[in-house]
Amino acid sequence: MNVQRRFRENIVGDRIGADIFDFAARIYPICRSITGDGVRQTLRQIGAHIPLQIHEVPTGTAVFDWVIPQEWNIREAYIKNEQGEKIVDFAQSNLHVMSYSVPVRQRVSLAQLKRHVHTLPDQPDLIPYRTSYYAENWAFCMPHHLLESLRDETYEVVIDSCLADGHLTYGEYLHSGETDEEFLLSAHVCHPSLANDNCSGVALLTQLAKQMAGMRTRYSYRFLFAPGTIGAITWLARNEAQSRRIKHGLVVSMVGDGGGPTYKKSRRGDAMIDRAMAHVLRHCGLAPAILDFSPYGYDERQYCSPGFNLPVGLLQRSMFGEIPEYHTSADNLEFIAPEHLAVSYRLITAAINVIENDAVYRNTMPKCEPQLGRRGLYGMIGGNKDSAAANMAMLWILNLSDGMHSLLDIAERANLPFAVIQRTAQLLEHKGLLVRRDDSSGE
Amino acid sequence: MNVQRRFRENIVGDRIGADIFDFAARIYPICRSITGDGVRQTLRQIGAHIPLQIHEVPTGTAVFDWVIPQEWNIREAYIKNEQGEKIVDFAQSNLHVMSYSVPVRQRVSLAQLKRHVHTLPDQPDLIPYRTSYYAENWAFCMPHHLLESLRDETYEVVIDSCLADGHLTYGEYLHSGETDEEFLLSAHVCHPSLANDNCSGVALLTQLAKQMAGMRTRYSYRFLFAPGTIGAITWLARNEAQSRRIKHGLVVSMVGDGGGPTYKKSRRGDAMIDRAMAHVLRHCGLAPAILDFSPYGYDERQYCSPGFNLPVGLLQRSMFGEIPEYHTSADNLEFIAPEHLAVSYRLITAAINVIENDAVYRNTMPKCEPQLGRRGLYGMIGGNKDSAAANMAMLWILNLSDGMHSLLDIAERANLPFAVIQRTAQLLEHKGLLVRRDDSSGE
Amino acid sequence: MNVQRRFRENIVGDRIGADIFDFAARIYPICRSITGDGVRQTLRQIGAHIPLQIHEVPTGTAVFDWVIPQEWNIREAYIKNEQGEKIVDFAQSNLHVMSYSVPVRQRVSLAQLKRHVHTLPDQPDLIPYRTSYYAENWAFCMPHHLLESLRDETYEVVIDSCLADGHLTYGEYLHSGETDEEFLLSAHVCHPSLANDNCSGVALLTQLAKQMAGMRTRYSYRFLFAPGTIGAITWLARNEAQSRRIKHGLVVSMVGDGGGPTYKKSRRGDAMIDRAMAHVLRHCGLAPAILDFSPYGYDERQYCSPGFNLPVGLLQRSMFGEIPEYHTSADNLEFIAPEHLAVSYRLITAAINVIENDAVYRNTMPKCEPQLGRRGLYGMIGGNKDSAAANMAMLWILNLSDGMHSLLDIAERANLPFAVIQRTAQLLEHKGLLVRRDDSSGE
Repeated sequence: MNVQRRFRENIVGDRIGADIFDFAARIYPICRSITGDGVRQTLRQIGAHIPLQIHEVPTGTAVFDWVIPQEWNIREAYIKNEQGEKIVDFAQSNLHVMSYSVPVRQRVSLAQLKRHVHTLPDQPDLIPYRTSYYAENWAFCMPHHLLESLRDETYEVVIDSCLADGHLTYGEYLHSGETDEEFLLSAHVCHPSLANDNCSGVALLTQLAKQMAGMRTRYSYRFLFAPGTIGAITWLARNEAQSRRIKHGLVVSMVGDGGGPTYKKSRRGDAMIDRAMAHVLRHCGLAPAILDFSPYGYDERQYCSPGFNLPVGLLQRSMFGEIPEYHTSADNLEFIAPEHLAVSYRLITAAINVIENDAVYRNTMPKCEPQLGRRGLYGMIGGNKDSAAANMAMLWILNLSDGMHSLLDIAERANLPFAVIQRTAQLLEHKGLLVRRDDSSGE
Repeated sequence: MNVQRRFRENIVGDRIGADIFDFAARIYPICRSITGDGVRQTLRQIGAHIPLQIHEVPTGTAVFDWVIPQEWNIREAYIKNEQGEKIVDFAQSNLHVMSYSVPVRQRVSLAQLKRHVHTLPDQPDLIPYRTSYYAENWAFCMPHHLLESLRDETYEVVIDSCLADGHLTYGEYLHSGETDEEFLLSAHVCHPSLANDNCSGVALLTQLAKQMAGMRTRYSYRFLFAPGTIGAITWLARNEAQSRRIKHGLVVSMVGDGGGPTYKKSRRGDAMIDRAMAHVLRHCGLAPAILDFSPYGYDERQYCSPGFNLPVGLLQRSMFGEIPEYHTSADNLEFIAPEHLAVSYRLITAAINVIENDAVYRNTMPKCEPQLGRRGLYGMIGGNKDSAAANMAMLWILNLSDGMHSLLDIAERANLPFAVIQRTAQLLEHKGLLVRRDDSSGE
Repeated sequence: MNVQRRFRENIVGDRIGADIFDFAARIYPICRSITGDGVRQTLRQIGAHIPLQIHEVPTGTAVFDWVIPQEWNIREAYIKNEQGEKIVDFAQSNLHVMSYSVPVRQRVSLAQLKRHVHTLPDQPDLIPYRTSYYAENWAFCMPHHLLESLRDETYEVVIDSCLADGHLTYGEYLHSGETDEEFLLSAHVCHPSLANDNCSGVALLTQLAKQMAGMRTRYSYRFLFAPGTIGAITWLARNEAQSRRIKHGLVVSMVGDGGGPTYKKSRRGDAMIDRAMAHVLRHCGLAPAILDFSPYGYDERQYCSPGFNLPVGLLQRSMFGEIPEYHTSADNLEFIAPEHLAVSYRLITAAINVIENDAVYRNTMPKCEPQLGRRGLYGMIGGNKDSAAANMAMLWILNLSDGMHSLLDIAERANLPFAVIQRTAQLLEHKGLLVRRDDSSGE
């Protein structure tokens, strides 16, 4: 095995988008919920790529203000008309059954059935995604057009589900870095066949963890694959002391469509992850949205609750709730694409690169400019289209490296990508014009 | 008599606009100036509604850099032409005589008369409002069209006024609250028949004082009805020590037209009244203007002089000087309306509500979100159009109630009206999810 | 000789633009470089107006990271074709020879010649300005059209230059003020016949120094005429301790065209010179650009290097590099004009006026407004079109003169020109309503 490589921004080639997509496609058919075998199957798939640690937390366990619910599993479900035709079949789409539906096996009139059906009248061809985790109920979800076509007859409804004491399951993987300060990367695994929300995020983090395995990093990276809300609450309840090690964090969801990118800041608003992600997005060449924290969204709600207030933001492409495909059967494998997944991957690795490599340097020749020409530095990349930027990067770094500005500070002030500032700082350090602040004695 | 009610935002019903208008109409005909019987009559009218304390300050009394001037009263005034017709008559409009005009009774040529006439050439049908408090002079004010129609003949001019030692008169009323920290509400009473400027403000504060009489409040409310500039200076000179109790204040003028609303901040710029009034205006559904302090305007000039620097702002509808009716006979009872007065009243009571009820709470379940559904809180107002806002209000309050954010802080951050945040906080407190910071021991 | 006058904003009449232009025209023909007799001739011309101290620093002297280079002088240079015609002649334009070209005298083919020719293909009628101070080379500069017209024949190229040990020359003049705190005014003198860049700046500062000679000032004014980069570095290296006296500074270049004005802030960004210059520009009636510091530009690069971090900004009309005339033969005497030079001069003197006269006053009547009318102050300038501004100036000054706001603070807050605030403050001081803070005991 090779010596571990240092983390670099572009740690992979052109295959990454396809690799993420393929993994998302593999886990897409599984019927997940906040508990049950669908989560276990998904975690096993992840575990085929990284040494995932799987946790089972028993029903009834108290986690802060919550209690682990009964485990839900489902074998089959359908609605049959009087002709015996399955007009709705769970085997066709796991969205057809409201998640956590209690078992039912009965004959109902159309009127009775309608009280247990969810549709989207404004999107009549799509199946909605619905859940009822904490209120006992059952329901089918179907296209509104189908509902409208049903005759007034008797229907046989079957949901062969099981709600029983069992476990809540989640998986985590820790990539150990040079310090035990942690960077949390979290994706929810509780949604059934919704490709973007969140097969995309689960697949991206799985591939990132796999790529990172062979690398040396400053931070330790904790990858958490858990059901939304109750899963994050469970992890926090079981790792309260440990959570103080988290210095940076990102919730990753809906990263496979072509929208955004969208970054929602942590509750702190000025955490390093907020600055790094905002910087990367401003230079990504797309049309990013950088939003202040709000307490509605994904598991950043829990990580950023006032008793934790962790520096965890949310990265998405399109913002949740703002696209018509959201929480419908249109969030399928055609809605996500390898090229979008690759872009999302690179945004995250670029932000990690900032956080891994930000540092404060000091100009060793702070009185007037050093003579760059004599060192072959001035216009050295002449002819190269990046030469003007490289020259400006040198001047900015030398001017601001007074022991009080980090590379990210300089990148922001110079309005240049961090990677350009980083490369140029390495060159200047090599030429002896820059030293790391913590390399100097007496500070 | 009932137990005193707590101050609430909407303390009155639909009559309030009409009540304010009726009172404004009652005091509109009175000829007021900075001294004299017109002020006394006005204060007597106010005193019919609230137990007003009336102060008489003798001519010659020094008040800081100023001296109480002689008292001015007027019985009649007119201009007669050679046919004996009264072409201008004070009995028709008290704007016809420049305020503080010295007595005159003489025959003058048209040319001589013109040197004592004010008109508005650009608004030739209107009578201007003019004063000469501190320079001895006399003048008539009339429509420009009338002046232009005058023949070159001899005119008899009579101003039967009286300038003599007497008093400056002002009234004040203190509604005592739970603390002796005061909220100053101040309206100038020195203008003659100008409905908006300031019968509207005088009438609004009279009705507010009347409504407040039966209520329990945290602050004590001082209502001051005094002539502009010299009246405020007099009050400050006689109550210098007392003025330190003023924690919030509002000058109220021109609150009966349909413009604005306009709020000019106190000199401090970040006083609680500035934040509360700006918040209320941002959510009022109109097109508010929120202006930084400037040293030109109404009595906030005195309250915000550097030796006092009190947290006193100015509320108006249209900004003074920016409407054609300003300081003309067009500022009459047709220019103001009950519905505008009612809106102004509600803006002021909404700001008072913010200041009375702002408080810092603490989330009792700060680690992760509490399970709202279990408590019947989540989507509890489902179907109600306010339900989304109520849900967001709950999440914002729980997220930010870390002992460092007040309800107003939260309302500003969530961009929701204070009243929504306040109601939701009461609900959460009732459910045990929130406690007032000062209820906890050890803080 | 008269008693010295206090520095005033408009210290000169309408001749100033013409005087600056005439001086710029006088030094325009001289062939300057970073060393050599051209600089000496220029400094002698300056010395005819002010008692300039001229410094000669030997070749080889170390100045921080740099070394004083050999001195460069040139007698003649030309290219002759086979007919013996001088197709390019240094005597026609000193831009024809790349500055610091080594001597050459040889016959070359057209192909060989082309390797030593600079042109501007996009501006084919203009001669570019080129230098090669630190890389040994020779080159001619010519219009692109001329280059294209050359036949394929043998050319005689002659550059009769001399690179030898000698000196770097610069000049400085100190106008002594009441304190030894200094205001640095710096112009580069190293460019040959480029009128705007920087005959304009050299001429403006020469005239300013001359005008200032007879005046009393609070600060001492150091005028520095030195070659760009190496000259500023040399001065800083030889005056490192002295440089700490510099409390304000301005690099002056390209001040003769009609663009801008452009002010680039010092590295500090909030230095007094930054505030004063920005204030003056905002009220100049032109379309100013006020830019944050960046480490590319003129000698502010050295003054603002992190080891010095002096409060020195850059004033220009058009921003360097942003106009087609920049560093070409089109930057000639037709490109600059007396009226533009006069405007630039007044911008600088207005900023100096702010810095000389900014002070903190205290309102002697801070409790309520003083009675301005009694003192003949209110509307005193009635009829004068400046009267409203003067009244507002009075109110702002009285309101903000609480010992914590300077006149510039007040001018910025009131959005009124400093000169109006200054004049009004003098009037109020004369009337006893204002005292300088440092006139009061105990502070």
